[in-house]
Formats: sequence, structure tokens, C-alpha cells
Amino acid sequence: MSQINRQIQLASRPTGEPSVDNFKLVELPLPELAEGQVLVRNHYLSLDPYMRGRMNEGKSYAQPQPLDQVMIGGTAGEVVASRNDYFKVGDKVVGMGGWQEYQLVSAEQRGALQKVDTTHIPLSAYLGAVGMPGVTAWYGLVKIINPKAGETVVVSAASGAVGGAVGQLAKVRGARAVGLAGGPEKCRQVVEELGFDACIDYKQHRDLKSLSAALKAECPNGIDGYFENVGGMILDAVLLRANAFSRVAMCGMISGYNGEPIPMQYPQLILTNRMKIEGFIVSEHMDIWPEALKELGTLVATKKLKYRETVAEGIAAAPEAFLGLLKGKNFGKQLVKLI
Amino acid sequence: MSQINRQIQLASRPTGEPSVDNFKLVELPLPELAEGQVLVRNHYLSLDPYMRGRMNEGKSYAQPQPLDQVMIGGTAGEVVASRNDYFKVGDKVVGMGGWQEYQLVSAEQRGALQKVDTTHIPLSAYLGAVGMPGVTAWYGLVKIINPKAGETVVVSAASGAVGGAVGQLAKVRGARAVGLAGGPEKCRQVVEELGFDACIDYKQHRDLKSLSAALKAECPNGIDGYFENVGGMILDAVLLRANAFSRVAMCGMISGYNGEPIPMQYPQLILTNRMKIEGFIVSEHMDIWPEALKELGTLVATKKLKYRETVAEGIAAAPEAFLGLLKGKNFGKQLVKLI
Repeated sequence: MSQINRQIQLASRPTGEPSVDNFKLVELPLPELAEGQVLVRNHYLSLDPYMRGRMNEGKSYAQPQPLDQVMIGGTAGEVVASRNDYFKVGDKVVGMGGWQEYQLVSAEQRGALQKVDTTHIPLSAYLGAVGMPGVTAWYGLVKIINPKAGETVVVSAASGAVGGAVGQLAKVRGARAVGLAGGPEKCRQVVEELGFDACIDYKQHRDLKSLSAALKAECPNGIDGYFENVGGMILDAVLLRANAFSRVAMCGMISGYNGEPIPMQYPQLILTNRMKIEGFIVSEHMDIWPEALKELGTLVATKKLKYRETVAEGIAAAPEAFLGLLKGKNFGKQLVKLI
Repeated sequence: MSQINRQIQLASRPTGEPSVDNFKLVELPLPELAEGQVLVRNHYLSLDPYMRGRMNEGKSYAQPQPLDQVMIGGTAGEVVASRNDYFKVGDKVVGMGGWQEYQLVSAEQRGALQKVDTTHIPLSAYLGAVGMPGVTAWYGLVKIINPKAGETVVVSAASGAVGGAVGQLAKVRGARAVGLAGGPEKCRQVVEELGFDACIDYKQHRDLKSLSAALKAECPNGIDGYFENVGGMILDAVLLRANAFSRVAMCGMISGYNGEPIPMQYPQLILTNRMKIEGFIVSEHMDIWPEALKELGTLVATKKLKYRETVAEGIAAAPEAFLGLLKGKNFGKQLVKLI
């Protein structure tokens, strides 16, 4: 076992678009284990759009990522040393280990590590379809959109880890699932691999009128539910096709993460269509995780819920992979494989 | 009894701001009563902002007002002739009689007329605090905002028939009520007569920063609930002061009724504050009317719910009074007294 832990820290806050210079790679010695502590070797690091928000100083729903400290992030790994009765060497675990190779967890950090069963579900899936992104999809779809059979659900960033699950969960409930993604390759995958009914390449539509017409074509009965990951023109176009009593689960607005203005052009449609728009953060709804994970785990184990992974290799590759994620270069869940 | 019924019809659809020329006064002979029919002499006509939307042809939640037909509207009056066992001459009734002096109701129009008790509640109040505006306030406040004691509720158009009730219902529930109204006289009335904790004169604030600062001063603990009647800059300013898990009941957006663009500048705040925004039309929630009317009727009869009325005289005055309502010239409920 290496005596060095390599980690990525936030070196500076971005102005507008972030760059690799905002990050730094730091090497630290591995600490000695105190009584009750567990040392985890992280096999996978999860990269997620929310991390972009944490890099800013401004008011958001969470504390900003501190400078000169390890970047926050979900991890999946294996216990490599333990002075804790509950965790044994060899246990597979998930947690919020951050962008680093090793993670030391103390006994008093109750709930910081969860043991997982990799018999039927790959370890990496606990960072995706059977983890935070999957539960995010589940919460917005089930608890906010709550589609009835025959309704139409639209999801932006449909080829992403969250969006891909949203459409498939909608299909399970008998709804029509229409995705929005960037580029023909992603759209093909969303339809052919993930089983959506249709996917619109938003890059083919440079103005609201064009995108709105494309939505009309793929959603002939209008839109009953929308799962929002992007914001901006896509949200405007969806609102123009929204049905009475439609629901919007607002999960992310990546188009504005670098400070771009993303006004909603016609908020009066919320009224005329008697819509409900709800913003949420899945970590504030821990009560639904067991129910969500039960469905997601079953669907993944039985191969009814499909997902893709884009895997970068080695901790040093994390910043570049993260910047790629923000630009939509990934297919499905963006991971960094550390071992 | 006059043998003539005078009514206001929609003569043409407005382009932008409506004018008196969009209306015309028409005289019609009173019809003979057929078996089962009731003739009502309307004492009061209700003027409400939603009528502006009906004047347009475009898609909205309701059918447009047809041209060359009597303008839609709520009325309160008295049965003056009846060939129907349920209604007696002298009964006080409310209905959707339209902008006219007399209203003929057939037996098959079940529910078109409701008898009301004017022992403790004035007839006109059934068009305001104990009618559609009151129930509108009740639905948005109770069913969407649902304030807890100690929370802060903001309402725009606070001196209007709906807004005035919203703040008082919030106070009944132990919340802080802060209004927005146009001009010092209205603001004084909202605080001194209606009992709001504070009222901001939005006309004193020409930009978002200034209005947002005023809201901060009057809502030191942020905003937990917002009842929207106006839209535009006021909505933007409220969102900037909204607390986590705040709720917006979207009832009207009068600032955009003439087609002005009213973009929402920072929709990302819905996400970062995990807000819920819900549009509604009270006529689609008939199930809650009994509960709402019970509370509203009790509060009005015991003089705990205050309201003001602005009364125009005679059917010919209706168009001018309606245009004044759209410009905020009224105090409280805008009525036309017909007798």
C-alpha cells in the first residue's frame, strides 16, 4: 500500500468558465489510524455538475468549497485498514471521500460510509444509477412530476447520469419519454440504448422558435412533466409546449453555472398553464432514499435500467474530466477510476 | 320595472392597452319568463383583472370573451320575477350575470345562481371578501403558501380585493404580512385599515436593486411566501429575498396583461432556494370553496376581515371603471352599482 495520498484541491475560484488552473494536485502522507478509524482506498470518484456551484463564493444552497482543501465529491472504494468493529478490510463502501485516493473516516462520522453489496450491482453504479444521480432522478420524477401513464415527460441533459434515469423511470410508469441532448451521437444513444421514445439534438436549434417546433413534433400531446437540468432557452421552449397542470422538477441549470444570464422569457405561462415548478436538492430528502434505492437497485440488478459511464483514469485526470463534464463531453455518468 | 336591459358588450379586441372604444353599451328588451326561469336584477357588478385576459384572442386558461356579446362578470342582485320553485321574488343571489342590469337564468343552468344571506354580510361582499376574490386569496395563501406562525408573507397589489385578504389571512395564521402597493395613500390604508405589518410603495422604486433593498428592510427574516398578482420587477425583487423552501402562489401578472415582456431575471433562484411556484385559478378548485367561504364569511361577519370598495355608478360607467382597475386607480374591490 502506498504511503502517499494524492488529492485535488481547489486552488482558486473561477471567474466565469473554470480551468485546470483552478485546481492543484497535492501529495500528503497517509495518517496513522486511531482507534475507531477506517481507511478507505477510493476506487471511483464521482464528478457531478453541482460541484461547479460549490466552486463559487456566492450564496447558493450549500457552503462553498473551501480553498486549499480537497474537492468535495462522492466516492466508492474498499476498506484497506480498520480499527472499527463495523468495517472490515475488504468491505466495499461508498461515501463522500472527495477527490483523493484515500479517505480516513472516524467512528464519530456516523453515516459517512455505507457498506454496499456488489454481488449484482457493480461498485461504480453506486455513484450513478444506484446512487445520488439515480435518487435525484427518482425524486424529481416520482415526487414532483409524478407522471400518469400516457403523459409526456421531457428531460434535458438526457444522456447524463440523472437525465438518462429520469426517462427510463418515466417509461416504467407508462409515460412517453422525450430527451434533449447535445449532438446526434448522444441522441442516438438516448433512444437506442436507454429506450427513450425520442431525443432532440438541441444543438440543431439555435433559436426558441426552432426548438419549440421540434418539441411540438416529438410531443404531439404537449408536455406534462419536465425535468430540468439545463435552463435557458431549453426551459423557455418547454414552457411554450407545456400542458395545463404540468409539473417542472428543477434539478439543475447548468447553462447559467458560469454566471451567464438565463432569464425565463414567459413566466406568465406558469399561470396560464397552472403549472407547478419546484426546485429540489436530493440530499435534503433523505427519507425517500430507501424507497428510491430499492427501485433503482432492482432495476439495475435486473438490467432494466441502463446506464453509461465515461471513465477518466487516475486522480490527476479529475480536473480535466470535470471541465469536460461541464461542457457535456461525457456520455452518462462521469467517473474517475483511481485503481 | 324597466322593460329595457342595458348591457356592455365587447366591441373589439385591444391592441396593447385597452380603451373605452373596445366596449359598447347595448339596450335590449327584457324577455318573457318561460317556465322554470328566474329574472335577476343585478345590484352590483364585479370588475376583476382576469377580464383583461379574456379580451384577448390568444391562448389562455379560458375561452376568450366573444365579440358582440355581454362581457363576462360576477354579479350580486335580487330576484325580481320567478317561474322557478326554488327562487322567490326578493331572494338575494350571486352569479355570473355579466356586465348588464338584468340576468335571465333558466332552470337547467344548475348552480348559476346562489342564494346568499345578507343578515350579517352585505350583498356586495359576496363579490369581494366572501366571493371569488376572497376565495382566491384563501386558496393561494392556505393551499399553496400555507404559512407557519412567524413566517413572512409578501403580497403584491396588497390594496386590491385579493391582496388585502391575503395579508389578513396570513396575519390570522400568525405570519408577518408585508404588502406592495402603488402610492403612499394605498400603503397607508393597507397598514392602518387592513392591519398589514408593512407596505412598500413600489412606485418609489424604479429599479430592482432599490425595490429589493426595501423588501430586505421590511422582511428582515427573508420571505417565506409570496402571493403574486403583478409579476415583472416585483417578482424578481421578491425572488432575490426568498428564503429556502419558500412558496409562490401565482395568481396574476397584471404587469404583462397588455403584452409587455416580463421575463423572470433569475429563475436559478427557484433551484438554489428550493422554491415551489404554483399557478392556479380558483374556479378549478371548487372543492375548497365551502371551507374557504366558511372562514371568510365568519371573519367578515365578525368584522375581523376588513375590506374596501370602490364603487362606480351605473352600467355605463363600467368600462371606465374597469380601465381604472387595470391602472390601479381603485382602492380595494372595484364594483359597479347598478341600482
